[in-house]
Amino acid sequence: MSESFFAMSNDITIRPIEIDDDDKGLFDVLSQLTSAPRLPHEHFQRLVEQQRRENVRQTLVALDEQGQIIGTGSAMIELKFIRQGLPCGHIEDIVVDEKARGTHVGQRLISQLVDFCKSRQCYKVILDCFETNIPFYEKCGFATQATQMSLYF
Amino acid sequence: MSESFFAMSNDITIRPIEIDDDDKGLFDVLSQLTSAPRLPHEHFQRLVEQQRRENVRQTLVALDEQGQIIGTGSAMIELKFIRQGLPCGHIEDIVVDEKARGTHVGQRLISQLVDFCKSRQCYKVILDCFETNIPFYEKCGFATQATQMSLYF
Repeated sequence: MSESFFAMSNDITIRPIEIDDDDKGLFDVLSQLTSAPRLPHEHFQRLVEQQRRENVRQTLVALDEQGQIIGTGSAMIELKFIRQGLPCGHIEDIVVDEKARGTHVGQRLISQLVDFCKSRQCYKVILDCFETNIPFYEKCGFATQATQMSLYF
Repeated sequence: MSESFFAMSNDITIRPIEIDDDDKGLFDVLSQLTSAPRLPHEHFQRLVEQQRRENVRQTLVALDEQGQIIGTGSAMIELKFIRQGLPCGHIEDIVVDEKARGTHVGQRLISQLVDFCKSRQCYKVILDCFETNIPFYEKCGFATQATQMSLYF
């Protein structure tokens, strides 16, 4: 990526999720993606600790200069028996606060999550998105491949 | 499901993957899905043990009366911060040996994987498939939702 790209967003910090991020607007941002009511702090803390312990999923948060969360995204590493036993990366729950859109935060999150998957020897990374977001993910290097189907309980 | 459904396939056993399943035709079946060269036994065994230890992904195999693998499929449980902190199930790598197609093995695998996701409190199960398989997954209760995109390394 070009120097100007980083210059545009060098006041933004991206780091793995921490146990007090529920106080920094995480659920306000996630609620712009889907239903994401704020969890009781103990529940949130347990999930963050479980994620760290299991070590198969990483959630990143992007913070502005005031330390408020303006974006988040996750990647999960899936063990596979196919493809010479190499894992597959899954990118999930990407969202950028509406006030911060157009500042390349989303692309930076994707780029770091892709790097995380590469560092875990994945042979590919996949994600599911609605049609309106296809151009964004194409800019990030992804290509359409298949159809996502779901079954809600 | 009806009694006749089970009667049709009661000579088939479905169980979690075991460390000697590489000798029962697993890779021949997986190769009908995608590139799946047989792994060295130690590598395969390590992956099965890792899957058991991590406890976030379950692979099922379907065996015929002779103890040969005729189908397989996996489900993975993804921790989420959205949706009240309920996990999401992912179904992956479903394949039935071409000789065993039409015997409902695929539906039985999906049904058991969905039950596994339910037992882990998932709020939904998702999967990605090519357009030709949409009718099969609709019969299993799934509905099309989004587009899958991928980035190969």
